[in-house]
Amino acid sequence: MDFDISPKMTELLGQLREFLQSDIMPLEKTVAEQGFRASQPQLQALRAKARERGFWLPQIDSEHGGLGLSLMEHGMVSEVLGRSPLGHYTCNCQAPDAGNMEILIQFGTPEQKQKFLNPLLRGEIRSCFSMTEPERPGSNPTWLDTQAVREGDQFVINGHKWFTSSADGASFAIVMAVTNPDAPPYERASQIIVPLDTPGFRFVRNVPIMGHAGDDYDSHAEVRYENCRVPVTNLLGGEGAGFLIAQERLGPGRIHHCMRWIGICERSFDLMCQRAATREVAPGKPLGTKEIVQAWIAESRAEIDAARLAVLHAAWKIDRQGLYQSRSEISCIKFFVADVMLKVIDRAIQVHGALGVTSDTPLAAFLRNERGARIYDGADEVHKVVVARQALKPYGLKLK
Amino acid sequence: MDFDISPKMTELLGQLREFLQSDIMPLEKTVAEQGFRASQPQLQALRAKARERGFWLPQIDSEHGGLGLSLMEHGMVSEVLGRSPLGHYTCNCQAPDAGNMEILIQFGTPEQKQKFLNPLLRGEIRSCFSMTEPERPGSNPTWLDTQAVREGDQFVINGHKWFTSSADGASFAIVMAVTNPDAPPYERASQIIVPLDTPGFRFVRNVPIMGHAGDDYDSHAEVRYENCRVPVTNLLGGEGAGFLIAQERLGPGRIHHCMRWIGICERSFDLMCQRAATREVAPGKPLGTKEIVQAWIAESRAEIDAARLAVLHAAWKIDRQGLYQSRSEISCIKFFVADVMLKVIDRAIQVHGALGVTSDTPLAAFLRNERGARIYDGADEVHKVVVARQALKPYGLKLK
Amino acid sequence: MDFDISPKMTELLGQLREFLQSDIMPLEKTVAEQGFRASQPQLQALRAKARERGFWLPQIDSEHGGLGLSLMEHGMVSEVLGRSPLGHYTCNCQAPDAGNMEILIQFGTPEQKQKFLNPLLRGEIRSCFSMTEPERPGSNPTWLDTQAVREGDQFVINGHKWFTSSADGASFAIVMAVTNPDAPPYERASQIIVPLDTPGFRFVRNVPIMGHAGDDYDSHAEVRYENCRVPVTNLLGGEGAGFLIAQERLGPGRIHHCMRWIGICERSFDLMCQRAATREVAPGKPLGTKEIVQAWIAESRAEIDAARLAVLHAAWKIDRQGLYQSRSEISCIKFFVADVMLKVIDRAIQVHGALGVTSDTPLAAFLRNERGARIYDGADEVHKVVVARQALKPYGLKLK
Amino acid sequence: MDFDISPKMTELLGQLREFLQSDIMPLEKTVAEQGFRASQPQLQALRAKARERGFWLPQIDSEHGGLGLSLMEHGMVSEVLGRSPLGHYTCNCQAPDAGNMEILIQFGTPEQKQKFLNPLLRGEIRSCFSMTEPERPGSNPTWLDTQAVREGDQFVINGHKWFTSSADGASFAIVMAVTNPDAPPYERASQIIVPLDTPGFRFVRNVPIMGHAGDDYDSHAEVRYENCRVPVTNLLGGEGAGFLIAQERLGPGRIHHCMRWIGICERSFDLMCQRAATREVAPGKPLGTKEIVQAWIAESRAEIDAARLAVLHAAWKIDRQGLYQSRSEISCIKFFVADVMLKVIDRAIQVHGALGVTSDTPLAAFLRNERGARIYDGADEVHKVVVARQALKPYGLKLK
Repeated sequence: MDFDISPKMTELLGQLREFLQSDIMPLEKTVAEQGFRASQPQLQALRAKARERGFWLPQIDSEHGGLGLSLMEHGMVSEVLGRSPLGHYTCNCQAPDAGNMEILIQFGTPEQKQKFLNPLLRGEIRSCFSMTEPERPGSNPTWLDTQAVREGDQFVINGHKWFTSSADGASFAIVMAVTNPDAPPYERASQIIVPLDTPGFRFVRNVPIMGHAGDDYDSHAEVRYENCRVPVTNLLGGEGAGFLIAQERLGPGRIHHCMRWIGICERSFDLMCQRAATREVAPGKPLGTKEIVQAWIAESRAEIDAARLAVLHAAWKIDRQGLYQSRSEISCIKFFVADVMLKVIDRAIQVHGALGVTSDTPLAAFLRNERGARIYDGADEVHKVVVARQALKPYGLKLK
Repeated sequence: MDFDISPKMTELLGQLREFLQSDIMPLEKTVAEQGFRASQPQLQALRAKARERGFWLPQIDSEHGGLGLSLMEHGMVSEVLGRSPLGHYTCNCQAPDAGNMEILIQFGTPEQKQKFLNPLLRGEIRSCFSMTEPERPGSNPTWLDTQAVREGDQFVINGHKWFTSSADGASFAIVMAVTNPDAPPYERASQIIVPLDTPGFRFVRNVPIMGHAGDDYDSHAEVRYENCRVPVTNLLGGEGAGFLIAQERLGPGRIHHCMRWIGICERSFDLMCQRAATREVAPGKPLGTKEIVQAWIAESRAEIDAARLAVLHAAWKIDRQGLYQSRSEISCIKFFVADVMLKVIDRAIQVHGALGVTSDTPLAAFLRNERGARIYDGADEVHKVVVARQALKPYGLKLK
Repeated sequence: MDFDISPKMTELLGQLREFLQSDIMPLEKTVAEQGFRASQPQLQALRAKARERGFWLPQIDSEHGGLGLSLMEHGMVSEVLGRSPLGHYTCNCQAPDAGNMEILIQFGTPEQKQKFLNPLLRGEIRSCFSMTEPERPGSNPTWLDTQAVREGDQFVINGHKWFTSSADGASFAIVMAVTNPDAPPYERASQIIVPLDTPGFRFVRNVPIMGHAGDDYDSHAEVRYENCRVPVTNLLGGEGAGFLIAQERLGPGRIHHCMRWIGICERSFDLMCQRAATREVAPGKPLGTKEIVQAWIAESRAEIDAARLAVLHAAWKIDRQGLYQSRSEISCIKFFVADVMLKVIDRAIQVHGALGVTSDTPLAAFLRNERGARIYDGADEVHKVVVARQALKPYGLKLK
Repeated sequence: MDFDISPKMTELLGQLREFLQSDIMPLEKTVAEQGFRASQPQLQALRAKARERGFWLPQIDSEHGGLGLSLMEHGMVSEVLGRSPLGHYTCNCQAPDAGNMEILIQFGTPEQKQKFLNPLLRGEIRSCFSMTEPERPGSNPTWLDTQAVREGDQFVINGHKWFTSSADGASFAIVMAVTNPDAPPYERASQIIVPLDTPGFRFVRNVPIMGHAGDDYDSHAEVRYENCRVPVTNLLGGEGAGFLIAQERLGPGRIHHCMRWIGICERSFDLMCQRAATREVAPGKPLGTKEIVQAWIAESRAEIDAARLAVLHAAWKIDRQGLYQSRSEISCIKFFVADVMLKVIDRAIQVHGALGVTSDTPLAAFLRNERGARIYDGADEVHKVVVARQALKPYGLKLK
């Protein structure tokens, strides 16, 4: 066992940290105040610079123009970028586009790649992933209301979705819809590409999250598919393969998320320490002299470091043994890191006092955006059942 | 010891619960979507009805047109109203106006009462309380930068404040400012009435809380006093009395808050149970069949009931023995109930899944508005020191 | 609602507190070091004094020679006595005898009362309650292996029990055994009195709890019934009534336990403050100057006070509305107070450092004896389901 | 970064796991019931077998007859051995002897090594470490009352110690005593070897821990030094070097402890899963079908795995960069792993129900022995201050 980071990664991570500090973080305040759309000129300039500097598509293999990193290596990158709400977007490795790229690379036809993947890789368009439904539990991905009925060489899609994140301004959605209602549960749904200018696609609203609707990339849309017709060639990977593809997409996606969360932890920790060291509660007596604040700092330090190792270990295991062998580890980090992150954000807010709940630091946005971390991509409770199922199997108890 | 509620209160609380259900709660969605200012017509109609029904000014003695309830009785009312974000406002017992009314009743001159108190009691105007400063810790109320310098028969006020809640649309502020910088710490500040149309008062912005700036009553302003001149007759209760008045104001205010929080707990509990009973995770299997959800419900039930009794007991003790004798109890409920409330809100959100973080239920607004409950009116950590100081005194340890 | 304590109770509680301090607590060290049996002379003298002072049988109606207190009033007494591991025993209101007395008063025949109840009330003998079985879950009281088969005018009992607490030195057991295996689950078991000198009763051992087996009253026995024959007249309250009687016994018993736990909390709190005020971490700097210790003290103060009110409220409700109407409250306090108690004990231990885990203070014995509080009388998890079931009913979800 | 375990270690760990299963664990029940001294014949046979199999002294360099493992490698061994309370003792790497061996190797004179180290390495004698004093805080190792005054070529030692673990039956103690009371705090104490047959050494008692006094190796003694005279040649490493040596001893010791705790976690986890899979709460319904139990299992799995990685990383860093550079990591794992361990033990106990608090599984002994883990070797709170101090330094706040 060796915790050394390779010279290659040490160099890359150092450069990224510097770039984050010098170029990405200074733009945060503007975007927070103006919104994402109004900040496009600056954001595009930033992206161009990232590309130029060699930070583009860290999660993609070199054949498709990416940096060709292992999942563990990309995890390390993801932590650095995660320190800023703009980090992943800057390098074109943001959700949901990153997941969609992976699907298209793995399951896309040459035509689909040509039309949808390539402009995505170049950062010319954005996309979204349309799976979650308001009326159906996200914890049960086999139970969907949205239907895609084949008529001739078209699918006619009808359904109601939300948390189709970043649909505002996106060019296409990958839609999860039931195509084979009578198949076994895990073979009922398919994934279908729907360009958002297709008639029958209706953008309802950006759902306000704690009162903040956001815009453009920074948003979570409610949408409806009303007799929305797309050619059958927009099908991804075969009828009934929807669930399988979703699994493939979510596995590495959880590593990305978890390492992004570690980045959020580190940024929050940084803000907490900064505040503790400088905010005086009485002349000459900074907050950091309080033992309770010290305890929060220490607990955060210990938890973040343990969480990082757990995620990197899971990534390493996926790199070595694949997703299936690593599903207990993946589920573990999902709920463990989400919990650590929300605790660290909470402590950092408390140390900031009234300032902590305002939008004057990134902390309140971290809380707003990431309270959902315990819910999205499978609620914590669902992942715990997965882990327990694996743990109890050797003792002779088979849980469904 | 007798936990019975008097017939008078049983009747009043029953009527209020009904009114809440029939009139107040139906307006919530409108206000959440349109904002407070645009909803004024409906809100004023609601207030008129509350007045007519005999629910006006529950916290005020009958001499001043209120219901003349004891603090414990008002606590019970506050719980019912707290179930809706609009409850207290409807009955004109909302912070910060309620506290300002109390100050004016207790410390106001006849002229001040005539000019500021009476229209406030009638609900014709709103007010704000301008104490917290961005550069100084709220935990140390004796350390303020805002100064009011006497020049002739005027105070010239200079300072920077924020969390001057509800300043947007208010008629006057009660400003905490240092008038006697060389006095002992607790006698340095005074409270001064500043009409908001006074030149030199500058409204900077409504500070966004987790990305939501709000408006009108539902807002937290940043303001500046720039050579803002008011007559010395606007002084409340004597030079240097600011801290003392603030203490008087905060004591009962904490009961109001805590019982409002219990109302938030009950509303959240109600939503959680509703969701658990009806949201299916599989056909015919509602969430409430899950033992983890059951545990959250049970823990919430136990915690809320214990918290309510603790607050009512503290109110009862204040009614009997006064604020000073009750300061340990007041500090205890401050952090205990805030903690219970945030746990209950958190569980209710988790049971709601993705819906929980949206603005489609009041839960996300509860979290956004009340994360600050562990910070405002004295951070939890400050109150814990107060309690420990009282607890350790009999053992011979005198903490400063 | 009125939190005043009646003059009668104020006086009684004051006397008891004094007696505890002057007579009971000084004996603790002796009993801890010598064991219970070897301390009998001193303990019996103490009991005689308690009787003389009018503290005997506080939980029993005056007709049977007790103090005739309401459940709420006895709750208050139980808190005071609970501060010492010897308190309840001193006043003859200790488990399991107190519960057995209640059963015998309510369900005993005149002969049973004469033979078993009266000497128990006089404190001449001790008894035990034999329900829990090693091979069957305590959480499912309808699933027992122990059988009592009627042969002529005898029951022949066979079974294996443990946590037959205080069997060592007791005169008789009330045994829960299946008499009607084919009846509906809640009507299968009966309660039968078994004198411990009956052939076929086998005392196996005092089960060591965390390495401490204890002796005499202070013990938890494993026993076996091997063709153990008792006359059918030893049946309590009818065949198949075992579960019903157990419920009747457990309801008030939980109030007794919970208030005893509050007493343990207060004693632990007292020790924690004493230690914090006097133990120096550096010359002139006692532990209580540390903010983390202050936070523990404050949190404990708030939690204990809220817990006490919750228990007294539950007792009050049982007094007024009976057990059935109060079952949600009873279950709530069971897990809520157990949790508070174990947190307070834990903090007190931590404040004591190495001393805290030794037997030189009562804290370690509190932990050893009361870790089981989350398990015995229904595991916390079982009580949570009870509460959730009640909570979800009004929303239309009927849980079994 | 590479989480692979070397073939050499994989083989050794596999053999150890097998030996644990086949030879060590079967002896646990005997030792728990008979005590340590009465089990010496079996224990010595076990040790002989361990030696023969090549498992002797895993923590010691090969020059001194050990396995010559790195600290990280020994950490892995320590986890395996930690699964049994007898594991470390079996391989002669148990505290406090392991630490004393290290001191003697590093600081002992040839004569000291000859007389004290060699028989210790051979397992012929045992030793103890006499530092903690009842009247002085363990958190402040510079504040000791025990004095060693030089008279001629002797030290005359007077003092009162406890938690001189394993003194019962040991041959010598390393005593921490003040030799230079006027030196700077960290240079006041020295370490001196005291054979336990020296006149003036008085064994007072084995301090009962939660009612369990233990014996022989499995005990924590209170001792007194009363004009206890030893030759000055028994001084270790120079006058005033006591604190420095203690630091050197504690650093790697914390890795040993933490990995032993991970072993305790794994054993508890194993017992929890075993019980969950097999204990039925109703016919055909094992405990493990309960979601709450599943959640405990999953949380334990995630926490243990993260904790293990954190400890191995700290060990790796010490191996590479030394103790001083790793002090934040060492302090982090101290409190983080102790917390995880106590949570896992607690859950495992709860899953076992009444059985969990008895001595019939190792769980109750784990709790009894390891509640102190949050106290010994520096209370958690002390380690948190250490971590915060390091964390705040880069932000310009220097804490003492």
